[in-house]
Amino acid sequence: MQRFLGTSSRSLLLRCQHRHLATTPVEEVLFPTKSDFPSRHIGPRKTDVVAMLDTLGYKSLAELTEKAVPKSIQLKRDLNLDKPLNEHELIRRIRDISLKNQLWRSYIGMGYHNCHVPHTILRNMFENPGWTTQYTPYQPEIAQGRLESLLNYQTLVSDLTGLDVANASLLDEGTAAAEAMCLSTRHNKRKKLYLSNRVHPQTLAVVQTRAEALELEIEVGPIEQADLPSRELAGILLQYPDTHGDVKDFEDIASLAKKNGTLVVVATDLLSLTLLRPPAEFGADIAIGTSQRLGVPLGYGGPHAGFFACKQSLVRLMPGRMIGVTRDMDGNDAYRLALQTREQHIRRDKATSNICTAQALLANMSAMYAIYHGPEGLKAMANRIHHFTLTLQTGLQQVGHEVINKNFFDTLHVKLSGSLSLEDLKERAEHKRINLRYLGDGTVGVALDETVSVEDVDDLLWVFKAETTVEHLLARRDVLKNSIESSKFLRTSPYLQHPIFHSYHSESRMVRYMKKLENKDISLVHSMIPLGSCTMKLNATTEMMPCSFRHFTDIHPFAPVDQAQGFHQMFNELERDLCEITGYDRISFQPNSGAQGEYAGLRAIRSYHEHRNEGHRNICLIPISAHGTNPASAQMAGMKVEPIRILSNGSIDMAHLRAKAEEHAHELSCLMITYPSTMGVFEETVAEICTLIHKHGGQVYLDGANMNAQVGLCRPGDYGSDVSHLNLHKTFCIPHGGGGPGMGPIGVKAHLAPYLPGHPVISPLSSEEHSFGVVSAAPFGSSAILPISWSYIKLMGSRGLKRATQVAILNANYMSKRLEQHYKTLYKSPSSELVAHEFILDIRDLKKSANIEAVDVAKRLMDYGFHAPTMSWPVAGTLMIEPTESEDKEELDRFCDAMISIREEIAEIEAGRMDRAVNPLKMSPHTQSQVISDKWDRPYTREQAAFPALFVKPDAKIWPTVGRIDDAYGDKHLVCTCPPILPDL
Amino acid sequence: MQRFLGTSSRSLLLRCQHRHLATTPVEEVLFPTKSDFPSRHIGPRKTDVVAMLDTLGYKSLAELTEKAVPKSIQLKRDLNLDKPLNEHELIRRIRDISLKNQLWRSYIGMGYHNCHVPHTILRNMFENPGWTTQYTPYQPEIAQGRLESLLNYQTLVSDLTGLDVANASLLDEGTAAAEAMCLSTRHNKRKKLYLSNRVHPQTLAVVQTRAEALELEIEVGPIEQADLPSRELAGILLQYPDTHGDVKDFEDIASLAKKNGTLVVVATDLLSLTLLRPPAEFGADIAIGTSQRLGVPLGYGGPHAGFFACKQSLVRLMPGRMIGVTRDMDGNDAYRLALQTREQHIRRDKATSNICTAQALLANMSAMYAIYHGPEGLKAMANRIHHFTLTLQTGLQQVGHEVINKNFFDTLHVKLSGSLSLEDLKERAEHKRINLRYLGDGTVGVALDETVSVEDVDDLLWVFKAETTVEHLLARRDVLKNSIESSKFLRTSPYLQHPIFHSYHSESRMVRYMKKLENKDISLVHSMIPLGSCTMKLNATTEMMPCSFRHFTDIHPFAPVDQAQGFHQMFNELERDLCEITGYDRISFQPNSGAQGEYAGLRAIRSYHEHRNEGHRNICLIPISAHGTNPASAQMAGMKVEPIRILSNGSIDMAHLRAKAEEHAHELSCLMITYPSTMGVFEETVAEICTLIHKHGGQVYLDGANMNAQVGLCRPGDYGSDVSHLNLHKTFCIPHGGGGPGMGPIGVKAHLAPYLPGHPVISPLSSEEHSFGVVSAAPFGSSAILPISWSYIKLMGSRGLKRATQVAILNANYMSKRLEQHYKTLYKSPSSELVAHEFILDIRDLKKSANIEAVDVAKRLMDYGFHAPTMSWPVAGTLMIEPTESEDKEELDRFCDAMISIREEIAEIEAGRMDRAVNPLKMSPHTQSQVISDKWDRPYTREQAAFPALFVKPDAKIWPTVGRIDDAYGDKHLVCTCPPILPDL
Ligand SMILES: Cc1ncc(COP(=O)(O)O)c(C=O)c1O
Ligand SMILES: Cc1ncc(COP(=O)(O)O)c(C=O)c1O
Ligand SMILES: O=C([O-])O
Repeated sequence: MQRFLGTSSRSLLLRCQHRHLATTPVEEVLFPTKSDFPSRHIGPRKTDVVAMLDTLGYKSLAELTEKAVPKSIQLKRDLNLDKPLNEHELIRRIRDISLKNQLWRSYIGMGYHNCHVPHTILRNMFENPGWTTQYTPYQPEIAQGRLESLLNYQTLVSDLTGLDVANASLLDEGTAAAEAMCLSTRHNKRKKLYLSNRVHPQTLAVVQTRAEALELEIEVGPIEQADLPSRELAGILLQYPDTHGDVKDFEDIASLAKKNGTLVVVATDLLSLTLLRPPAEFGADIAIGTSQRLGVPLGYGGPHAGFFACKQSLVRLMPGRMIGVTRDMDGNDAYRLALQTREQHIRRDKATSNICTAQALLANMSAMYAIYHGPEGLKAMANRIHHFTLTLQTGLQQVGHEVINKNFFDTLHVKLSGSLSLEDLKERAEHKRINLRYLGDGTVGVALDETVSVEDVDDLLWVFKAETTVEHLLARRDVLKNSIESSKFLRTSPYLQHPIFHSYHSESRMVRYMKKLENKDISLVHSMIPLGSCTMKLNATTEMMPCSFRHFTDIHPFAPVDQAQGFHQMFNELERDLCEITGYDRISFQPNSGAQGEYAGLRAIRSYHEHRNEGHRNICLIPISAHGTNPASAQMAGMKVEPIRILSNGSIDMAHLRAKAEEHAHELSCLMITYPSTMGVFEETVAEICTLIHKHGGQVYLDGANMNAQVGLCRPGDYGSDVSHLNLHKTFCIPHGGGGPGMGPIGVKAHLAPYLPGHPVISPLSSEEHSFGVVSAAPFGSSAILPISWSYIKLMGSRGLKRATQVAILNANYMSKRLEQHYKTLYKSPSSELVAHEFILDIRDLKKSANIEAVDVAKRLMDYGFHAPTMSWPVAGTLMIEPTESEDKEELDRFCDAMISIREEIAEIEAGRMDRAVNPLKMSPHTQSQVISDKWDRPYTREQAAFPALFVKPDAKIWPTVGRIDDAYGDKHLVCTCPPILPDL
Repeated sequence: MQRFLGTSSRSLLLRCQHRHLATTPVEEVLFPTKSDFPSRHIGPRKTDVVAMLDTLGYKSLAELTEKAVPKSIQLKRDLNLDKPLNEHELIRRIRDISLKNQLWRSYIGMGYHNCHVPHTILRNMFENPGWTTQYTPYQPEIAQGRLESLLNYQTLVSDLTGLDVANASLLDEGTAAAEAMCLSTRHNKRKKLYLSNRVHPQTLAVVQTRAEALELEIEVGPIEQADLPSRELAGILLQYPDTHGDVKDFEDIASLAKKNGTLVVVATDLLSLTLLRPPAEFGADIAIGTSQRLGVPLGYGGPHAGFFACKQSLVRLMPGRMIGVTRDMDGNDAYRLALQTREQHIRRDKATSNICTAQALLANMSAMYAIYHGPEGLKAMANRIHHFTLTLQTGLQQVGHEVINKNFFDTLHVKLSGSLSLEDLKERAEHKRINLRYLGDGTVGVALDETVSVEDVDDLLWVFKAETTVEHLLARRDVLKNSIESSKFLRTSPYLQHPIFHSYHSESRMVRYMKKLENKDISLVHSMIPLGSCTMKLNATTEMMPCSFRHFTDIHPFAPVDQAQGFHQMFNELERDLCEITGYDRISFQPNSGAQGEYAGLRAIRSYHEHRNEGHRNICLIPISAHGTNPASAQMAGMKVEPIRILSNGSIDMAHLRAKAEEHAHELSCLMITYPSTMGVFEETVAEICTLIHKHGGQVYLDGANMNAQVGLCRPGDYGSDVSHLNLHKTFCIPHGGGGPGMGPIGVKAHLAPYLPGHPVISPLSSEEHSFGVVSAAPFGSSAILPISWSYIKLMGSRGLKRATQVAILNANYMSKRLEQHYKTLYKSPSSELVAHEFILDIRDLKKSANIEAVDVAKRLMDYGFHAPTMSWPVAGTLMIEPTESEDKEELDRFCDAMISIREEIAEIEAGRMDRAVNPLKMSPHTQSQVISDKWDRPYTREQAAFPALFVKPDAKIWPTVGRIDDAYGDKHLVCTCPPILPDL
């Protein structure tokens, strides 16, 4: 470049062509576009890459990955994606797209309501990587912040519903209802369900879809007609207030249900419960719903937290993650995930549910919203909405409209008077850019929310031709005559009495509380989080910014599609890109987690077989190393799981697979396989396996969790897979949010496309004819976070994405190499001697030699400032490390140094120079109160405990805030709501 | 409310009127508007206020403040402000206002350039209260994060200019130039300055204004005509590249200057210096400028950091804050403000400058920008801009335009060819929404920047009717013939070689570095910062959000006013509100700090006298308790300071004042007074004082730093003041940013209005006729942060603002009361026995009784997790505490508990039970390495050291990251750039 800029007689362009790739236009040389995002996303600098390759004995990334990825499946061309944008161009582009969404006022309701996200929560939580980039709190000692916040959420849900326990969120209201209904069948071993026809249609659809696969019998109708005395009903589902806004008295039905052994599941609205008698008080066993309106934007359908609360007696059947209170080794209160044995990690196809990634971040936002407002604030807000609704009712009735629902909180179900036709109403509403719910039978729903103002109600009155105003109506003495307050529905029991909900009402206190919790947790803002299978890569600010654009946040999922053109353009572009990346033909964005995607994919396979008159095919082959969600999803999809053995080298036992495929040739529905394998290896046989399955009439479900090892190098759709979910919260940069949100869209080959998920309100398909049903409440899942993945792809471009994959593989192999003198990498490809993008360290031998287990190494890593790798999965007694491409060489080295230093500490034990029971590993992690205590009687020093390496500096150390957790104690003494606060003195 | 909602026969409205204030409309009862912002901003809950009033023996806030504020000055009515908006309405309103600004592409240059703020810096720094809410790092042990960042900034400036030392920012380029020129006169005791006429006009104006008051002789002209051999010139100011974009060789001039004892001050552009030979290499003694284009938005003029670098030999004359490296008590490297004895706090009217609040946050952003890009990145960017400029030059010349400047970096000075008239050019530019610089003589300036794309240059070519494109031009072989690279100006010396600028180029590393530094510092996200006179109140997210609106950030200060209608509407509304709040008639927004406001106010007073033919009036009376900026500003304004004594009760010695006023009656220019006094007392005599001064022909300058004790209760304009600055970064919620930005607009009575600051480019006045001159480079100062103060007022409304003031006074008095058994509050109003909004604790007696000084208490507070109060100002040996209204009772109590606990620790020393030299106070603050060290030989425990109170919890403790700083060592061994990094091993 230096010399090139001098004077010379040959033309510039010629020289450019000479000195640079023939394809580099002169502009690129003189005005290098600043699309340097790939170098921001990818950790190692070019010189580091060279050094690391050198360590491994390779000359180039290409050479490395051509070796790592089986020849037979390698993609031989560049991905055909748009030219990458730089970060500023990208924001301009996505802003323009967002502006194609139209922000009408929406009174559609149906479980989705406008709300005001408190700005301090928006900025300090939703837009703060300190809150968005953690993983699920499986390592509680460095996760007490979000554990406390999730416990606050559970307390919120449990208090408002009146039920004993709640979990830390589910994916949405629809799946929460489905989980509840399935729970009831497991509880009382019955196979019939009755659903009120006054439940939101999308909830009904999700429950029906789920039930169908499990061959449960479902009836939908007026709840009064449920045949409870038959004693055949496992559970009934009703809604309170119902989808039309009606508030009804379910006491008699509930007591009849109880008498007959049927569980009562109530879909409800948390805000309404600040005024209304809570479900537990009229006999509900379970309450479910969404906490969206508590401080989470609409976002065209999500992400929002679904909630689930139940009686204590059902707790061990409850799906999802649950925070519980236990104690640490010093006897201090501490939080952690409780009753994990319920989860699919352990129970696999016996699991009660496949839920894994949930909606932690959104649950945290709702919890903070409740803390911000407190019970009085929430109640005042609810009253305000209710008063507006009463006023609107009065105005509508005054001109002859009939308000069908007599008792209501915020929603009116209106039958128009003869003097206003539905068409006129629609026209007037459109004129004011207002969306109402048109129920199809000529009646209309209007749901109000906390953002509604006097002017808004005046506009609604105008739309209904009510020729009056709020001001006029208030002059009438009877505006409030129909209020909840003067009804038998009035709630009298207290709620949110815990000090947490009374202590943070000034913004200063609120900010400090959020910051205090944030600072207890390790997130990506501190150090790498090398969780195998979780792909904790950079979540770049630029990718996150569009999530706050109001043209993405403020749109109702059931708004007419022409108001959501921005979203649909983005969906289309992302679908095109993901198809190109995976080799699939279509994408469904409905599943909002990986597990949900698995379920949807399996259901599509099932439908495919059914439509080919092979409905009997129901065997699902799953290697025993598969993630627990795989067998759990298969079970839920009504399949019979046949485990496939693996060899001692970690790869699938081909003989066993062949035998099983043949044995079940006639009933073979599919194989679920993870690629590269959960063992971190590119198996050579994958294409062969796909062929084998196809030969026996089966379909291949490829678990896409490990796409980060494949993008740009090979495509599942090319080498034989029929369907995959993509964890957008792994490979495609959606941050994990401390346990969600995620997105698990599925890609399918064309033959499966007709069977993708549909939706009863807004169809994502061109035809619903062959759809197997509905998996999420919202037609496009958690639409509002899709811009993150869209942005990632547009920023990286084809070369950037490929390089990211190559560096992910390089990073893993480099670490494995650096550690090989110290720990054994359990599995490598026998042909290449390489791992894929992650690898497993075997800790088992150390049990005998030093009494050390994987958990001790994991906890000791915290003293070094690191989050542990994935522990004891997929192989007990191991640690699985996935660095991702975003970590640079220095960070990888730091982590390796920590591991090596720990190995030396273990060697001290082995050599008998350190106690086998009391040593830096067994006693880890070390807290400030331990090492700053006046007493210290351990056989190692305080400094060894707290500053075990030179890079652990006293001025920047990340501390665990509690000592080693006592899990068993907590599960024995289960407490899942906020514990009493003891005074300091 | 409960019963009220039942059925009843009386009309609703009547009942509302009955049960509530007669003025509460029924809507307010049924639909309470959610303008609850005042209760978010104000800390104590209603019940707390009652309890605190009770402690003090008052029944209501009104009763308290009617007692506290002298009757004679009380405002007897509510402020007449708009009905308060809630936070969501506010954002809608300010967004709509912002959209009235038009975002044209601007190639005006003149020291202001578009740039891309890296999103990760924007979000994690500029929008992060962890970085914006600290005070200036006067307490280095809990400020190592921003000290390190500011040191990085100094290194950046020093490296790029090639000079030995740089400071940690000044207010802008204009004042930096003025400071440099004044420095030169102090350096060589000469009184003449020569300024190149190729310096930006606003810079010239600021320098000329400053010089005039100091009676310096100024000549402006071609730099070649400076009469250096006369040996009368103190300094010369030149610009490189100059305002027309010309890059000239100043080597000969500089060497001539040197020979003749004249200092060479070079205004320069940091980005250009990545390519151009730096000023130090051609003989500059000082380099100044703005670092705006390094990652800080235009913001219609600010805030941006001005920079200042000089030779080592001038360092003790250098204005502004400077970070230096020293060591702590354990001998570790540590950063702190160096050479503070230069500052006005100490030197008062002998000070070299009045600068106090500077632009720390913006300096930090620029430092991070340089770290993010690294030297290679910055150089590539500069080359890209330069290549575009060369291409444009070629295109313009090709059609006959003359490019007047032969050598350039990014700016062309164009004389149009006959075939394109200026009018046509303007029309074409407007058609493309492009702003150019029209120089008035028919020539045109075009300045390119990092955001420019090929399309932009194509558009510029079109505007100049150059009928070609970049692509075509690149085919020519001579596009680069005029490049810097092939000129003698090419920089050959390296820069930014420190590892800091090479280590954080992936976003993950960048985020972690910013987080690491953030977490070293105490800010308002952790605890109260009770700095007296600094008003560390809540900086609410809602107030901050508009600062990121691109219609505020992306507009050039010299864009035509009709493109800035949003800004001007906001200025007008804010001016109206501030006038109503203060009782003044006009506001000038030009001063961008309090000290700058003082200077501007004093200059307006001077002009007023001059225009009344009383130009001889030059005595400024200043109580000796005044802030150091007061005498420093008076000195700069050419006044003679006469100190006024104070009485032992802290109030002004009226007899002395009267005597001085009489003595100087004929030369009396003004009095500067702070109200309530810097002693924290509402003096009864203030109105009397104003009358006295006026009687003697003087004007009253009321330092508005303490407006937080007055808003809504009394108005300076009412009780006799003529002019005040308002520290918007105190009372009006602009966060302190770790030492700026701030805004110090001045309010004046009508008679002073004609004399307010003007501007040579965009006039803020209706007529410049009487303006005394110019104080800032930008016509409206740091316009882009004014939305913060605008928002605060709109959110609080008249009642909210008044309540805030009342609670500020309540909080101070409550604390003073709680502490009275333990410490002596030095001054209270003799009549009310109350303090104002802050109070001073006397620590002096403890020196004798326990060998304890204020600094020991201040440092010990850090162990309790608190930032110290203001130390030894305005009285040596004291601590001044200002809680502000945003702190709640619990936080106040916590702070008082800490102070009481410290007093008990002191009592232990007094009682002889604790060593006088080695005790928890003398050894404070305690670091992790100290208390976790294996060795501990102190007469108190580790736990006493680190967890001295129950509320200091090991799971949430904020740690000082270095031990007690050794200031003297640092000043003796001055190091002001990044120290070498030693390897860990
Ligand atoms: C291999 C594999 N499959 C499936 C899943 C389930 O994805 P999700 O948590 O999004 O439901 C995971 C998640 O960690 C996984 O690692
Ligand atoms: C009383 C007083 N006057 C003036 C100032 C100067 O204001 P600034 O720092 O904005 O220049 C201060 C700042 O601390 C102050 O406290
Ligand atoms: O949650 C996971 O199993 O990754």
